[in-house]
Amino acid sequence: MKNIYIIGVGLIGGSLALDIKQAYPTTKIFGIDNNEAHLDAALSLQIIDEKSTYDTLQKADLVILSIPVDYAVIELPKVLDLVNDNCLVIDVGSTKQDICKAVEKHAKRRNFLATHPIAGTEFSGPKAAIRNLYKGKTNIICEVEKTAFQLQEKALQMFSDIGLHMRYMNPEAHDKHIAYVSHLSHISSFMLGKTVIEKAQNERDIFDLAGSGFASTVRLAKSSPKMWTPIFKQNKENVIEILNAYIENLANFKAIMEADNFDEIFNEMENTNHIKDILNGIV
Amino acid sequence: MKNIYIIGVGLIGGSLALDIKQAYPTTKIFGIDNNEAHLDAALSLQIIDEKSTYDTLQKADLVILSIPVDYAVIELPKVLDLVNDNCLVIDVGSTKQDICKAVEKHAKRRNFLATHPIAGTEFSGPKAAIRNLYKGKTNIICEVEKTAFQLQEKALQMFSDIGLHMRYMNPEAHDKHIAYVSHLSHISSFMLGKTVIEKAQNERDIFDLAGSGFASTVRLAKSSPKMWTPIFKQNKENVIEILNAYIENLANFKAIMEADNFDEIFNEMENTNHIKDILNGIV
Repeated sequence: MKNIYIIGVGLIGGSLALDIKQAYPTTKIFGIDNNEAHLDAALSLQIIDEKSTYDTLQKADLVILSIPVDYAVIELPKVLDLVNDNCLVIDVGSTKQDICKAVEKHAKRRNFLATHPIAGTEFSGPKAAIRNLYKGKTNIICEVEKTAFQLQEKALQMFSDIGLHMRYMNPEAHDKHIAYVSHLSHISSFMLGKTVIEKAQNERDIFDLAGSGFASTVRLAKSSPKMWTPIFKQNKENVIEILNAYIENLANFKAIMEADNFDEIFNEMENTNHIKDILNGIV
Repeated sequence: MKNIYIIGVGLIGGSLALDIKQAYPTTKIFGIDNNEAHLDAALSLQIIDEKSTYDTLQKADLVILSIPVDYAVIELPKVLDLVNDNCLVIDVGSTKQDICKAVEKHAKRRNFLATHPIAGTEFSGPKAAIRNLYKGKTNIICEVEKTAFQLQEKALQMFSDIGLHMRYMNPEAHDKHIAYVSHLSHISSFMLGKTVIEKAQNERDIFDLAGSGFASTVRLAKSSPKMWTPIFKQNKENVIEILNAYIENLANFKAIMEADNFDEIFNEMENTNHIKDILNGIV
């Protein structure tokens, strides 16, 4: 891989660029972004070697599409139209059904690999890009069988070289499970932040009392609405299903409190407490 | 302060013992706990210098009550009965109305100072005790005017020496605001954990996909039910009030999604996003 194109030089794309460059120092990283300031920042932060456009995509060996998922479904077919026959194109979005559907009949479908590295922070943009973000993390790969053998191999080698370990799922299972373990957490965080801000007549004073527990539960409320809105839109059904279950559990907890049944409140927590063991190993 | 008694040698009491010993190396730390294994652990971890009982409380210069809040309201009057006239007694619980009420008419009310250091982790027991837990953290002090001047001074000096900064509130305001920025976060975390565990037909597989975002939002679900049940019981009204507001916001978010109004979903997140700035400084 000589020429690598990163479309969307934010947290995810930028961090990939940094790790790939470290693993393969002789590659040249080209950046494409509709935000010129981000491109400039990526260049000066040495995340990319050169600013570029779709006009030169023909020479790409690898294209990484790391833009919000609503743009990804529009841009991916265009990118596939432009790349050469040996080029590997991957996306890294948090939903997989719509993107796989968007190119299922594309003549260059075998050039594409649908992936979702489970990594990130609550920050965004090229300045949020960090080295080793992917080390030891999980990369979900969907419909691997639809990608050309040689390009599968190329992709897996690269993921492995930057520290990712692979899990294979179909796009439907991916979107369902990720709604559970990622999308819901973002909504719970945003609404927790909203609720407390609303209650705070004097925000400064109230947040002055907040400790690390609160910070931890609302951390994801710092995430980018531009990135998350289309994720919720594309994964609407799964998200609503799990959100319903969450609201029901909260309402039930409240009802138990209202009934002064604190033995049962204890049980509610005790039964969930073994999440300790489940979570061991996740950072 | 020569003789310091820690009643309840868990995360909070144990960490206090470690920091106080570091600040005042010549003090002797006595441990009291109804869990003999915890006492032994505290001794072998050098959190306490000696195991003790209420029988010797008379010689205490400082008693720290760091036990679940349901036990605290029972034990505090007994402890005050036993200590000498110059002894300072503090509690460190997460609710302040009930404990203040429990001793409002006690003959030794002026020996007591009600405090709540906003610090902790999701772990519990003496093995969870860590040094410097309180450095740079906030300590809420309630009804300071009801404590004897000299004991106020003694307490504030000690808190300051282990890195805490003080905030003064009445018990009602404390319990209301802490429901917002701490108690709600624990419920949201426990119920998030419960919801995802219920959905996971094969837990191992689902949690294998979880990233740091999920881990962060469910971290508090590892907390001790024995400690948290009485907190929710004592702060029932405030907790139910904020839980209602949280459930309403979640239901509203869901309704907006169901109506396919994703511009409004964007706004919901955008409007909460400034929590970034509010949270700066809380770790």
